[in-house]
Amino acid sequence: MISNQRFAGIELGGTKIVCGIATGAGDVLERTSIPTREPEESLVDIKTWLEPRLDDVTGLGIASFGPVYVDPASPRYGHIGATPKTAWQEFDLLNSICEWATLPMALDTDVNAAALAEIRWGAAPGHDNVVYVTVGTGIGGGIVSNGRAVHGLMHPEIGHMKPRRLPDDDLDGMCPFHGDCFEGLAAGPAIGKRWGKPLNELPSDHPAYVMEADYLGQLAVNLLLTASPTKLIFGGGVMNCTELLPMVRDAAARHLNGYLELTDPSNAAVELIVTPGLESNAGLLGAVALVIDT
Amino acid sequence: MISNQRFAGIELGGTKIVCGIATGAGDVLERTSIPTREPEESLVDIKTWLEPRLDDVTGLGIASFGPVYVDPASPRYGHIGATPKTAWQEFDLLNSICEWATLPMALDTDVNAAALAEIRWGAAPGHDNVVYVTVGTGIGGGIVSNGRAVHGLMHPEIGHMKPRRLPDDDLDGMCPFHGDCFEGLAAGPAIGKRWGKPLNELPSDHPAYVMEADYLGQLAVNLLLTASPTKLIFGGGVMNCTELLPMVRDAAARHLNGYLELTDPSNAAVELIVTPGLESNAGLLGAVALVIDT
Repeated sequence: MISNQRFAGIELGGTKIVCGIATGAGDVLERTSIPTREPEESLVDIKTWLEPRLDDVTGLGIASFGPVYVDPASPRYGHIGATPKTAWQEFDLLNSICEWATLPMALDTDVNAAALAEIRWGAAPGHDNVVYVTVGTGIGGGIVSNGRAVHGLMHPEIGHMKPRRLPDDDLDGMCPFHGDCFEGLAAGPAIGKRWGKPLNELPSDHPAYVMEADYLGQLAVNLLLTASPTKLIFGGGVMNCTELLPMVRDAAARHLNGYLELTDPSNAAVELIVTPGLESNAGLLGAVALVIDT
Repeated sequence: MISNQRFAGIELGGTKIVCGIATGAGDVLERTSIPTREPEESLVDIKTWLEPRLDDVTGLGIASFGPVYVDPASPRYGHIGATPKTAWQEFDLLNSICEWATLPMALDTDVNAAALAEIRWGAAPGHDNVVYVTVGTGIGGGIVSNGRAVHGLMHPEIGHMKPRRLPDDDLDGMCPFHGDCFEGLAAGPAIGKRWGKPLNELPSDHPAYVMEADYLGQLAVNLLLTASPTKLIFGGGVMNCTELLPMVRDAAARHLNGYLELTDPSNAAVELIVTPGLESNAGLLGAVALVIDT
């Protein structure tokens, strides 16, 4: 039984790396968190912790920040792509791990992994069409359609769509590629630049909340009209401001203007856009979900 | 063999209905085109032509304008949704056909069906992640992810996302739900209202082309960053202006600003955004593809 087996997971983030061992039932048995350094140094850190723990482990999942090449048919499979973290650009992540780990492996973006973990153990049990959005130092999203993570040309990069700008927002936008895309206007750095503080240090009646909710509501609309999820999960550090989620729901409904019927009695509108069910273990369990789903 | 079998298809459009018989190899054996009338009258027209032809037919596919309820678990499965064609709202399309046709059936949106047909016989052979956009009296889109049409909450309704407005565009927008969404600003009626003529009656150096290409380029970007297709197909009457497609490609590249690498030697940027491979039979063959894929 899968639930009794042990799996290893690596969540590779821009500021920290989480490694752990969990059961196929989603119980974390052991974990560690390591600051992200240069790639070669970080790989030594990962190996030091993980290699001695790989006995009796069925598989290893890797959930990486993006962009990362996730198509096994690509010659760049397992490499990091054009990230602002320049030391990691083109780093051959997967092969660096294959040098010392020989068990079955799976690799995907951290956000695709989180979407799969939320379906398996979190906020979207039984759902086949789910989007997981993270709003933190950037804005990323994972999409599961018909039960499987979406890759295609690369993988979704939803934070780089552009919202309608609000008339009272004069921030240029922080994205090095696109300026005022969703990530450039609504991720943590944009909030800090615009208001001088993170959202959680501002009172909930501050105009920062209305602006943030409007941008995230527009993002929700774009996702509902493309991926058509039955659960749309908003996670990440910015969403820890609990006043924000109901405001995002309201903004999305206002922009949709009744177009999508979200009011089925068994599935009221307020339940479509939700927060994650898995908290600090979401990334690690996402990595584990990847290799279970392989 | 599927390719030797005979299938029936119904393409239900807002102005015309196409019924036909085709082989599983995509060869149309017989077809008819009927003006769309009130639903009860149109169903009589469909039955009159199709019922006598159903001997030796393996299955019947129905590709309908949207919104249409495509979830077999919904009590409203097979009904038309909130369409501006008010006589059709809530019409029980599928059951009206089941009254006289007892063969295996499949139902989806016209655009999801077209995406599947383009994969099977048209512009996207072998592709698992494809978006089919139609730009005509409205803007709709079908999405295939991991080889299957996307449904989820309803089905994609990509035309109702909102673009950044161009500064020299003062049209209010024609969408009864959202005003200046993509459909409200860039479908045929918006072009007609803004410039007094359809695009194909304007010279290709007219500013209408630049504006239309920019809006459709923004739409392409949103689709590339969410559904992540390896083929993005632009069809529909407006795209019959052949000067438009290269301008849409250029606009999409300009808005992406190098973020997606479309320059793999085996898959150059110009080949990602294409026109349909199936021409006047696309809708009918889409319907047939639906029931083959069931």
